[in-house]
Amino acid sequence: LSLFYQPDIEPHYLSEEESRHAIKVLRLQRGDAIRITDGKGNFYDARITETGKHHCHFEILKTEKHPARDFQIHIAIAPTKNADRIEWFVEKAVEIGVEKISFLLCQNSERKSINLERIEKIAVGAMKQSQQAWLPQLTEMKKFDEVAHELADQKFIAVVDATNPIHLKQLATPAQKYLVLIGPEGDFRMDEIETALQNGFNKVSLGANRLRTETAGLAACHILNLIQ
Amino acid sequence: LSLFYQPDIEPHYLSEEESRHAIKVLRLQRGDAIRITDGKGNFYDARITETGKHHCHFEILKTEKHPARDFQIHIAIAPTKNADRIEWFVEKAVEIGVEKISFLLCQNSERKSINLERIEKIAVGAMKQSQQAWLPQLTEMKKFDEVAHELADQKFIAVVDATNPIHLKQLATPAQKYLVLIGPEGDFRMDEIETALQNGFNKVSLGANRLRTETAGLAACHILNLIQ
Repeated sequence: LSLFYQPDIEPHYLSEEESRHAIKVLRLQRGDAIRITDGKGNFYDARITETGKHHCHFEILKTEKHPARDFQIHIAIAPTKNADRIEWFVEKAVEIGVEKISFLLCQNSERKSINLERIEKIAVGAMKQSQQAWLPQLTEMKKFDEVAHELADQKFIAVVDATNPIHLKQLATPAQKYLVLIGPEGDFRMDEIETALQNGFNKVSLGANRLRTETAGLAACHILNLIQ
Repeated sequence: LSLFYQPDIEPHYLSEEESRHAIKVLRLQRGDAIRITDGKGNFYDARITETGKHHCHFEILKTEKHPARDFQIHIAIAPTKNADRIEWFVEKAVEIGVEKISFLLCQNSERKSINLERIEKIAVGAMKQSQQAWLPQLTEMKKFDEVAHELADQKFIAVVDATNPIHLKQLATPAQKYLVLIGPEGDFRMDEIETALQNGFNKVSLGANRLRTETAGLAACHILNLIQ
């Protein structure tokens, strides 16, 4: 059964884009069953009541509420120079499970802007693909300092350094609100790490190997999912 | 310091491709220090002794031996319809850490061949990028039945089914030789799962969400790295 995304369920019709997909690609018709998520914890079993070139109305047969998870993963990551890599990270993090993704502007950032609309589409696609009822929150680029002052139960900054910090899996405890900072290709600057430490972040390692930015982001996300 | 790959170190010169990279891209010259891995556990600190248009000779100053890990991860995965996705899997699995990747031909496989040369290049790039001394073994496409008869200490088949199998992290124990089978987009057929079970494989889950083939492969790889 195809899963559609309709953030505002009340009007009982699909967005133009989703309608097109339903009618032109999947060739669904009046009377066909569809499944819809609002990305806010609800699945709806619905039936198509009317279709046109660009619209698709439905009636809801059943609502299925999914509570939010009892932990919350927020990954704040510096977008990679190559946009594909950060888009890939978003797709995979959503599949694996993440509540919030922020994009960090660091001193060593080579990419200073992102295409949030495109990234949101990727996140919606991954949510539908992995059959989830919650769409993670995505935010516009934020300066490192701003994110370093955000609140969470457990705050981590992923670093590659000779002092061999403790592995994230050993520091994080289950059922918390986590925030993990992942630096750009050129890594965090020393004063950024200092700022983080002063704001209650712990330095962590994500494993023995040197990881690319997007791999580090996904590794952090996966580790936090696994310790639950 | 740039890391070069030279599987056969004895002749003391880099391959044409690596030579070009050293001379044309990095503009290295006689006397410059380089670092080389043979992908078989050795790092070499070396110095360039002679360069030409297509060649780069060196002398070895120091050899650094790295033992293989005390566990061995073998992921056998059905290549995705979209070649990018399986290439992405190879890059990320190598970064995270893997000993062997096989490509599975299943009954539901939409892709029946791979470009092994291209995939090997990606693996070499990821090995260099993540500063590792071992290049994982990559093999040509093999039929499901052949791989189902391969030997390992712990053998798993990742399945998405209603019987809710145990999570891989709960079944795998540290320091073993693992083999994990990851199915195609259309999933394994029942008789393939039966064959695996008869050959000592255990069904496992990789988490709560439905994962794409390449994401499942990476998740399995990451989980096995984390339980050590």
